[in-house]
Amino acid sequence: MLRCEIIAVGTELLMGQTINTNARDIARELLSLGVGVYYQTVVGDNRERLEEVVRRAMDRVDLIILSGGLGPTNDDLTRETVAQLLGIPLEKNVEWEKRLFEFFSRFKRPFAENNLRQAMVPEGALMLPNDRGTAPGIILERGKHTFVLLPGPPREMLPMLRDQVIPLLKKKLETSGKLSVLQSRVLHVIGLGESTLVEMIQDMLERQDNPTIAPLAKGTEVHLRLTAHGHFPGEAESLLTRKAEEIKAILGDYVYGEDADTLELAVGRQLIAAEKSLALAESCSGGLLTHRLTNIPGSSEYLLSGLVTYSNKAKIGLLGIDPAIIADKGAVSAEVAAGMAAGVRRACGADLGLGITGIAGPGGGTPQKPVGLTYISLEAENFYLTRQYRFWGCREEIKDRASQAALYLLRLYLLGKLKPGQEE
Amino acid sequence: MLRCEIIAVGTELLMGQTINTNARDIARELLSLGVGVYYQTVVGDNRERLEEVVRRAMDRVDLIILSGGLGPTNDDLTRETVAQLLGIPLEKNVEWEKRLFEFFSRFKRPFAENNLRQAMVPEGALMLPNDRGTAPGIILERGKHTFVLLPGPPREMLPMLRDQVIPLLKKKLETSGKLSVLQSRVLHVIGLGESTLVEMIQDMLERQDNPTIAPLAKGTEVHLRLTAHGHFPGEAESLLTRKAEEIKAILGDYVYGEDADTLELAVGRQLIAAEKSLALAESCSGGLLTHRLTNIPGSSEYLLSGLVTYSNKAKIGLLGIDPAIIADKGAVSAEVAAGMAAGVRRACGADLGLGITGIAGPGGGTPQKPVGLTYISLEAENFYLTRQYRFWGCREEIKDRASQAALYLLRLYLLGKLKPGQEE
Repeated sequence: MLRCEIIAVGTELLMGQTINTNARDIARELLSLGVGVYYQTVVGDNRERLEEVVRRAMDRVDLIILSGGLGPTNDDLTRETVAQLLGIPLEKNVEWEKRLFEFFSRFKRPFAENNLRQAMVPEGALMLPNDRGTAPGIILERGKHTFVLLPGPPREMLPMLRDQVIPLLKKKLETSGKLSVLQSRVLHVIGLGESTLVEMIQDMLERQDNPTIAPLAKGTEVHLRLTAHGHFPGEAESLLTRKAEEIKAILGDYVYGEDADTLELAVGRQLIAAEKSLALAESCSGGLLTHRLTNIPGSSEYLLSGLVTYSNKAKIGLLGIDPAIIADKGAVSAEVAAGMAAGVRRACGADLGLGITGIAGPGGGTPQKPVGLTYISLEAENFYLTRQYRFWGCREEIKDRASQAALYLLRLYLLGKLKPGQEE
Repeated sequence: MLRCEIIAVGTELLMGQTINTNARDIARELLSLGVGVYYQTVVGDNRERLEEVVRRAMDRVDLIILSGGLGPTNDDLTRETVAQLLGIPLEKNVEWEKRLFEFFSRFKRPFAENNLRQAMVPEGALMLPNDRGTAPGIILERGKHTFVLLPGPPREMLPMLRDQVIPLLKKKLETSGKLSVLQSRVLHVIGLGESTLVEMIQDMLERQDNPTIAPLAKGTEVHLRLTAHGHFPGEAESLLTRKAEEIKAILGDYVYGEDADTLELAVGRQLIAAEKSLALAESCSGGLLTHRLTNIPGSSEYLLSGLVTYSNKAKIGLLGIDPAIIADKGAVSAEVAAGMAAGVRRACGADLGLGITGIAGPGGGTPQKPVGLTYISLEAENFYLTRQYRFWGCREEIKDRASQAALYLLRLYLLGKLKPGQEE
């Protein structure tokens, strides 16, 4: 088995200003190849100590993955330190230099000279292009050691790792006959608490072997991670598929998706299948629901509008809510939620109208209407429903739970599982 | 200065199943004492490799803080490995043994024999009681080295660290005259690239000593971390304040805030100071700008509404945009952005109206109007401005950059730094 050490470089990590998500993410990806991570190390932007750490890693592992320290400034030392330690000169990669010039001129950014450091690559190394930033990655083989140098920012590091490094390592392991396949699949469950879910699949959890099954509470969802191993990719894959089907036979519609699926994506698919359009009127969730739905490519197909009607004036003017109802029942009430759903549906000519009103806090709560009290209302042809909720947590958590509850309500409606009416 | 290494023990960390929050939290707490964290290491539940890692730490630092591996099962090895390495026998702590028996009988849990391992403490060590679990912490002095052994679960580790370990370390540093205070402050910069910023304060970066200055790119912002040490808290604090003022004198309004400030918070403060209300019409940013502004408690004071007018119908119906303009110029155009800003300002009776229209991708781009092309328009009394942008990245990054650019435009307007007109 290939032995690996992950080294994250950056003083901000050492000082605790940033959390080391890269080590976690790199370890997870390597697991899928059956590569054993034996050590993780964090070291600051200091040449001497970085060199010492890399030397030590060479004594104890074969595969050394470094992240961070590839940027343009003088405290970015990874490229130079590794090359110098191995006695390999850096050479300019003309292609990447051109890319850097193009990048800065296309986005009208001034070009500072020190950016050119990012076009320097150790002689004989493989350069990994970076679509999301200016620092390319580097793969370097030297004797029994493989070095992989990755940029520090996770949104640059992760795609480079997944799309370039992992396939290359996989090929290398395959040709050397060292590949054993470990694959994971995550089922996403909504509408069941973790303990209820665990009871429903108790037998399966007790008999688990290959795949293993691990439940994990994630906010208002529960994720079930299945992990299977096999001698070739198809074997692990088919074990996962079989187990996922078994679980879905028990949990039914509580499972809304797998792996990278999100609840907003699942609801988007339902809206497309049902050929329904949607309009939103948000108050306490403050645009978060609209933001989540518009994260899905193609959401303009079904999402006509999302109106954040924060002020009473906007509720009256844009949604046509009767000022007397706001005065009588308050802006946070079942009646106003229903008015928002009906108003936005009418104003936008949508099939479905959804309204959310509540108290996100930290201010604005009263004994009668505490922080977290929220009403969500859904209107469609020949249908309306208003549901009362009491969410807990800080302002951002309440916004998150409100948007999640609204998506779940849409999911249930589109599954044909809601009875109209007003629920308390 | 005391040099420290943080060692987290646990295979679940190595495999990427758990994220190493302990290292981050321990580093932060140590920073407040002026203890320098030079290395962080993660190693699995393996005696040989744990021993190697501890040996290595003894070569390079004075203070070694380990977390994890103090539990009752056979793969919890930290206590035994450290004691054996130092040649110190373990002895039973009768008090803690009693506590363990009590604990198990109180919660009616069966008492397994191996729980008694948790009452074993190296001879001469200080035992740290644990209110939230069954494993006590341990502090052990040996020659120039101090070992601190902490439980792995963060809800046990953190209170023990804060309430017991930090006060003890502080006292120790005080009596040895080694207490130095290390304090940090982060300046948030918007509107300058990292390399340009570095050139502007090049002299200061080259002469840096106390405080040190470290630039870090964070999306479209740059953060400058100043770290000062002093012999008492006021000293470090005043060094930071002086240096921050020097930097602000050079960078001026490019510095929008410090530490936990966000751009939306800074713009919110500007709106309150200027007594201006705001209404938003978003298209490609999909509600993200409204979501960010509504994350700030009290934002209902200045944010009247945020309308996500995704469909042309909504742009026409809610914002009163002339359908002929959409047909002629396209929904993504300077004219439509200006119409959105004007329309939402009028519809909501706001002082400022802001419109964003663009192509978030991944679909919908053309050679004339590529993915990322965005227009942002701002209208106020006797003022309007439309600016064209070309953002890069995936859908979520383009949404993020568009919301960031819009906040920056608002900032510049409220600083009185914008000239009206249409920019290409």
